[in-house]
Amino acid sequence: MFQLTDSLGAKTFLIDLSLSRVLLEDNRHYPWIMLVPMRENVKNMTHLTGEDRFKLMEEIAVGESIIQRLFSPDQINTAAIGNLTPQLHIHIVGRKMSDPDWPNTVWGRPSTPYDPAEKIILVEKLRTAFREELFPPN
Amino acid sequence: MFQLTDSLGAKTFLIDLSLSRVLLEDNRHYPWIMLVPMRENVKNMTHLTGEDRFKLMEEIAVGESIIQRLFSPDQINTAAIGNLTPQLHIHIVGRKMSDPDWPNTVWGRPSTPYDPAEKIILVEKLRTAFREELFPPN
Repeated sequence: MFQLTDSLGAKTFLIDLSLSRVLLEDNRHYPWIMLVPMRENVKNMTHLTGEDRFKLMEEIAVGESIIQRLFSPDQINTAAIGNLTPQLHIHIVGRKMSDPDWPNTVWGRPSTPYDPAEKIILVEKLRTAFREELFPPN
Repeated sequence: MFQLTDSLGAKTFLIDLSLSRVLLEDNRHYPWIMLVPMRENVKNMTHLTGEDRFKLMEEIAVGESIIQRLFSPDQINTAAIGNLTPQLHIHIVGRKMSDPDWPNTVWGRPSTPYDPAEKIILVEKLRTAFREELFPPN
């Protein structure tokens, strides 16, 4: 049965897509979501079937488009790292030249959580954007 | 016309796949290759057509499999960052718990070039592995 590891389970749930569970990293330095393919025992993309890999690529493109549309970042960093959490999860991070860590990468950097009210609004904004991608209005 | 940016053009050429040019990062701390889709004006994966994105995912899987088979890393880090080089390139890095930067990420870390003789052997090994993937023996 698919289950999130403890460290991913502690992140904020956004929505389940066809393949991936989408999570929010609670760090107001940059908009940062993660896609976790809902498959058992998958540490790397090579452990997915070819069909699931294509699905994942589609969902990555959806995630990147949403981050671009909602936050207008200067660049998007997309990565599967998993050195500390060996359950496949794809980071999608919107980067701005004005963010505290530009042009460095974001892993292992200090983070600041969202204000609770700000986070509620952000979560709803992201969920709505994914729902619109999944069920586009006619 | 597709052309590598200066910083990517300075890397070691390995082989051209159907979509991507494969380059070697000259850093003996970890086996590190890059895939550069041979398309113009592509900064992010969303700038590729859907068909090219699927091709890229296939080539990423080939690259990851080769790194796994040749170097038996403990984990593979795969990422599109591009904060300093805004031409889409996918890093594929084989990580070992014994490497100098584990469990941190590799970007912005000090690097050590290969010895010239060691590099020639490595380049040939990687080229052969990609050729075998492209033209598997019967």
